[in-house]
Amino acid sequence: MNQQTSTGPGTSSVVIEPELKYYRVRTEIETILSGLEEGDAVPSERELAARFTVARETVRQALRDLLVEGRIERRGRGTVVASPKLVQPLSIRSYTEGALSAGRVPSRKVVTFERMSADDGLATELGIEVGDSVVHLERVLFADGEKIGLESTFLPDSRFGEMLDAFDATTSLYAAIRSIGVVFASATERIETVLASPREATLVESTTSMPMLLLHRTSVDPDGVPIERVRSLYRGDRIAFLTTLRE
Amino acid sequence: MNQQTSTGPGTSSVVIEPELKYYRVRTEIETILSGLEEGDAVPSERELAARFTVARETVRQALRDLLVEGRIERRGRGTVVASPKLVQPLSIRSYTEGALSAGRVPSRKVVTFERMSADDGLATELGIEVGDSVVHLERVLFADGEKIGLESTFLPDSRFGEMLDAFDATTSLYAAIRSIGVVFASATERIETVLASPREATLVESTTSMPMLLLHRTSVDPDGVPIERVRSLYRGDRIAFLTTLRE
Repeated sequence: MNQQTSTGPGTSSVVIEPELKYYRVRTEIETILSGLEEGDAVPSERELAARFTVARETVRQALRDLLVEGRIERRGRGTVVASPKLVQPLSIRSYTEGALSAGRVPSRKVVTFERMSADDGLATELGIEVGDSVVHLERVLFADGEKIGLESTFLPDSRFGEMLDAFDATTSLYAAIRSIGVVFASATERIETVLASPREATLVESTTSMPMLLLHRTSVDPDGVPIERVRSLYRGDRIAFLTTLRE
Repeated sequence: MNQQTSTGPGTSSVVIEPELKYYRVRTEIETILSGLEEGDAVPSERELAARFTVARETVRQALRDLLVEGRIERRGRGTVVASPKLVQPLSIRSYTEGALSAGRVPSRKVVTFERMSADDGLATELGIEVGDSVVHLERVLFADGEKIGLESTFLPDSRFGEMLDAFDATTSLYAAIRSIGVVFASATERIETVLASPREATLVESTTSMPMLLLHRTSVDPDGVPIERVRSLYRGDRIAFLTTLRE
């Protein structure tokens, strides 16, 4: 923003020069996008480069950034205006509840349902012994039918195994956990950004060069007993999280 | 994790096959890293490929992901074990206070200090009129002398201009705002991931293919009057945010 205003009166600004052209092109493309509807075709790289009389590399950079930000998306061999990002509150509630609160229809597809032995890290986080059985449930998360994330949940088998064997894993896990009388009191969440592995990228229909949001959660009941460890990987081009901070 | 345990008893698992090799290599490299100290050289791609008898592409993928996750970093022509990520609480407090609470020494370098006219979006977020003067302060953020982010703050000139003209922009902005009697009551923060633009990548000594965390904040005083709009871009390989969620 400073680039566009750095020539105004009363301005003192240090700008790294090559960026000026990038920002001009990006702003021009954004103006074009704002005149289009969701799903409309975006003019090609070559067409835009000719229109702005800049190098294709400059246009490519701007289009790449708009793709990563979820403003545009590839469809078949072309590029179209994307639907708005899902903006979901950071909350102790489940993905399901978050998506519903954002007016989207959530669904899930089971990728993995298995039992495994807790290693050191998992045992510590779940408050169990090393070697204890853990149920691992991995699901692709959808919003309005679109793949937006991959959720990997680990639960102590002794406490949740029986419930999970009868659980319909296409429904809300939090609802099922609550149905056996367990209350979520608080969760610790660590937020990072990563690139997807090839497998993860395939599962969420993204690529290994698209940034993802990684949320690592452990939640506890009112007695402080750990309920679950969750690793949620969300497509950075399709979701943003919102939080309110207070003193 | 399911990949490593999917052959155990009582297991049912759907695994996309090519990932198995990737995970084995990645786990092996992590084992090597855990035996090294911060700053130690990481064996070369060629050496690791020979040791694990896998394609160099598989090793390259694993090293790339470890780089993005901040486990290793490029130094000169080699790759070394990185220092741990800065883990900072998501908080209404400033970067300065967050870094100090994480035991790091914060510092800042001014990149831009300018006055500009508020456009539609900025006027709405700052509760001022379109065309009103806004002070824009852009600073590179450091932790222990390492560049970790780029913070761009917009403040209404009428309320903060006088203070800012006398402000030492290498010090804490929040401390300066408080010093004129303004109280931060709450902030709304939107968390996303993006790739840096070429200019941003240069400023934080990263590259345009490394994912960044983008925090977009507006904060208000106890009367609900907007104080600032902040766009903070953090190196995803150097920082993670931590929050506690409650019902």
